[in-house]
Amino acid sequence: MIETPYLLFLGDAPDPLAAKVAQGIRDWRPEFAVGQFRMEGCKADMGLPDMTLEEAKAAGAKTLVVGVANRGGVISPEWKKVLVGALEEGFDLASGLHNLLRDEEDLAAVARATGRTLHDVRVPSVRYPIADGKRRKGKRCLAVGTDCSVGKMYTALAMENVMRERAMKATFRATGQTGILITGEGVPLDAVIADFMAGSIEWLTPDNDPDHWDLIEGQGSLFHVSYSGVTMALIHGGQPDALILCHEPTREHMRGLPDYSLPSLETLRDLALQVAHVANPDCKVVGVSVNTAAMDDAAADAYLREIEGRLGLPAVDPFRHGAGPLVDALETV
Amino acid sequence: MIETPYLLFLGDAPDPLAAKVAQGIRDWRPEFAVGQFRMEGCKADMGLPDMTLEEAKAAGAKTLVVGVANRGGVISPEWKKVLVGALEEGFDLASGLHNLLRDEEDLAAVARATGRTLHDVRVPSVRYPIADGKRRKGKRCLAVGTDCSVGKMYTALAMENVMRERAMKATFRATGQTGILITGEGVPLDAVIADFMAGSIEWLTPDNDPDHWDLIEGQGSLFHVSYSGVTMALIHGGQPDALILCHEPTREHMRGLPDYSLPSLETLRDLALQVAHVANPDCKVVGVSVNTAAMDDAAADAYLREIEGRLGLPAVDPFRHGAGPLVDALETV
Repeated sequence: MIETPYLLFLGDAPDPLAAKVAQGIRDWRPEFAVGQFRMEGCKADMGLPDMTLEEAKAAGAKTLVVGVANRGGVISPEWKKVLVGALEEGFDLASGLHNLLRDEEDLAAVARATGRTLHDVRVPSVRYPIADGKRRKGKRCLAVGTDCSVGKMYTALAMENVMRERAMKATFRATGQTGILITGEGVPLDAVIADFMAGSIEWLTPDNDPDHWDLIEGQGSLFHVSYSGVTMALIHGGQPDALILCHEPTREHMRGLPDYSLPSLETLRDLALQVAHVANPDCKVVGVSVNTAAMDDAAADAYLREIEGRLGLPAVDPFRHGAGPLVDALETV
Repeated sequence: MIETPYLLFLGDAPDPLAAKVAQGIRDWRPEFAVGQFRMEGCKADMGLPDMTLEEAKAAGAKTLVVGVANRGGVISPEWKKVLVGALEEGFDLASGLHNLLRDEEDLAAVARATGRTLHDVRVPSVRYPIADGKRRKGKRCLAVGTDCSVGKMYTALAMENVMRERAMKATFRATGQTGILITGEGVPLDAVIADFMAGSIEWLTPDNDPDHWDLIEGQGSLFHVSYSGVTMALIHGGQPDALILCHEPTREHMRGLPDYSLPSLETLRDLALQVAHVANPDCKVVGVSVNTAAMDDAAADAYLREIEGRLGLPAVDPFRHGAGPLVDALETV
């Protein structure tokens, strides 16, 4: 568990997209973000107060979060200066970079000397159990996609927001690096050892109040041959009561796999439901979340109405229209 | 890759079952087994010549394989004496124990000093790629089960045997510890990091001659919630042309999961085929392998005839009847 609140390190981000981790924290956990630290040439801006390390410390920040992707996969000397300074100032560091903080000798040494913690959220820090498949109390919702990167995390976070506004009991459960940095905890599922994948998700979504919903962050796709095993473990470990289908209608092939076409929403619905029923025979598909970013308003509306007609399920783009209708559907489960 | 041939270490096996790794090598790669090393009180016997380390060395053995499960998960001082002696004598060591050889300081030190290799086959030694889903040349057969431990490895090894007798090009591809020790190479799939599971199977079953068959060792089951993700990755990484369904008809619930019943062979067939078609639209289910160990001859025969009638596929117990009919079916693919 990463200590909050955060100072968001934007480094020398070459463009706003490079800072998508920081943007995620800013969007979904603004209460965790007391300020931002930008280096010379930084092209990203979260609209937060720019702070020195000392100012952030005084404002109560506990952890400096690397909210930016590094260039070339290497932590540069310029970054190092700030990261070492942050440790000396009393911050923990948290990062989802491939280049692990702990593998940098200087950072590791200063962290030891100052008693601070380096959180490399790409690497599991827990010994997960093997899944036992026992039914757990409370309810769970999982977003499954026709492909990778179609908006599953966004959908779950948007639903959690609406549910909190409605005073429903809801917890977003992060299963990826960005989600873990946003919420401060979770399971880096793609880095878990095969035998413990499903068990890690059981661990992440334990018994809870009967009216509590875990909103589990989806990963991969049952139809993406590179990562389908991860998705399978997520469905069987999560034993969801409700599934949301996620889709991006303009994509021409599976992400990174030019020879593979996307399944239809109906095909996804049927396979995901069959697989989910193994662990939870009561599981239902309750709605469709469509990423319509590439469509104009009229096209998006027409597409969503068509999906609603075809599948008999509420279909929305949570970014454009909010996740209200998906939460309405959850309330009927 | 583990150097062959082997001296099989049976230690102080409390019963023959404890030596199932040695038995597997003896059954499937007898040419790898020059002799056995038994300690006082050993209750297992492979029917091989009992040899001292010096005798085995003189007979050409290159690696001492720990062919027995250790008691209590700890490598005992009595074992140590033999293992250290084997390193000093010039043997490599290979083991599938949870208690890794490399984690024993004395073994690690002696291996370094003598220049020998410690093969802990539970731990991947290769940096596997992420799967790219590209179609590969050659053919692949995968055994999928209604449950774990229903005879998938045995089925693949028995088929390989028949195929070699028929001068067909065939290679058993190990994906578990026992299989790796039997053949000297493979992927310990249950220990691979989630993101690289499917890629490890692509790596294991590369381009080959058009008439060559990889017989891929199955793992887990699509219907076993603890390990289904592993099975999924195996199907998508292996992109099989042929599937063999494996079943144990007297099992009352999924292994280790008292609340989960086994799927029917028809349910397994339909789900496995749908999943396999994502990576290989030409994949076919070609036969059924049934573990009838718990049935008498008449009951086994009646059951197999019933399955053949129901599924329209050859159904055999390869242990009882040989794998010939399954290989006949492969030849039609």
